[in-house]
Amino acid sequence: MTHKLIKREILHKGVVFDLIVDHIEYPSGNGLVREVAKHPGGAVIVPVLENGEVLMIRQFRYPIQKTICELPAGKLNPGEDPENCARRELEEETGYKANHFEKLTAFYTTPGFCTEQLHIYMATDLIELTAGQKLEEGEESISLQRVPFRQAMDMIREGEIVDGKTIVGLFLAQRDIMHFT
Amino acid sequence: MTHKLIKREILHKGVVFDLIVDHIEYPSGNGLVREVAKHPGGAVIVPVLENGEVLMIRQFRYPIQKTICELPAGKLNPGEDPENCARRELEEETGYKANHFEKLTAFYTTPGFCTEQLHIYMATDLIELTAGQKLEEGEESISLQRVPFRQAMDMIREGEIVDGKTIVGLFLAQRDIMHFT
Repeated sequence: MTHKLIKREILHKGVVFDLIVDHIEYPSGNGLVREVAKHPGGAVIVPVLENGEVLMIRQFRYPIQKTICELPAGKLNPGEDPENCARRELEEETGYKANHFEKLTAFYTTPGFCTEQLHIYMATDLIELTAGQKLEEGEESISLQRVPFRQAMDMIREGEIVDGKTIVGLFLAQRDIMHFT
Repeated sequence: MTHKLIKREILHKGVVFDLIVDHIEYPSGNGLVREVAKHPGGAVIVPVLENGEVLMIRQFRYPIQKTICELPAGKLNPGEDPENCARRELEEETGYKANHFEKLTAFYTTPGFCTEQLHIYMATDLIELTAGQKLEEGEESISLQRVPFRQAMDMIREGEIVDGKTIVGLFLAQRDIMHFT
């Protein structure tokens, strides 16, 4: 690209993301402002039990003021390997650990205004931990749901699953799961 | 939810989104900060030609500093009907209009920190406009690509399509397109 960065403002250093405003200039002399939510990225897990059920969580999402059904997921710690993040978040949010992780893809949630990249893993050979979930403050509303895979696909078509990363993860796991179950 | 809003700060009124920081309190007395990117939402179009090709666009995305392949899409104007937005963005970004729109779903891109909801439409019975694309400043880098549907699905699996809404839109259109072509 041929734009030039004239000025960068860091408007907010956040808990989840920072807000950066870049003032850029095109060769024509025209200026533009680009707002960027700088996000550390994260990992999403598609945990599939031997009977073909997917471990999902229901949680209240503050921005949309709704409780929705999602795949377990979480933010990368600084420098963290995405697969480590997937292992950690699976244990914390579901109380299960997996012996096998397979990377399905990585994608950008909203590349028009945010840097967030999510790494998706399918997790199999699952073992329930005796300790259960380890939830952080504000996550108390997380409840575990075991959903047969075909039912989860129907929930997407019927608008009952409305979370982007969950739709992407389930669709990408589809071929493997049909094979696995 | 049983939290109480103590204080709301509007840290930024933006071009694409506003940044809101809510200070909330739980019944335990513990406080939390919730950062919310308030986004107007938008429409995504899966435009399918009679020969089974999907109209896609390649564009430079500033936050990730990459040129990527996406479905056409755009933000809702205040009070705008999502299907109108889909019609408008299809014409502006591709230079085509469609005689038939079918709503596939609506989903949240990042419900953990952003309000953005995207409405996805499949567009068929397409006509190329003589005027071509109508691009805004900063969209000069948009180029049109006709991708056979099966190839687009392969591009998802191979990590060549990395945009969340595009993956969701193509997967949801799959059943209809297989029927249509």
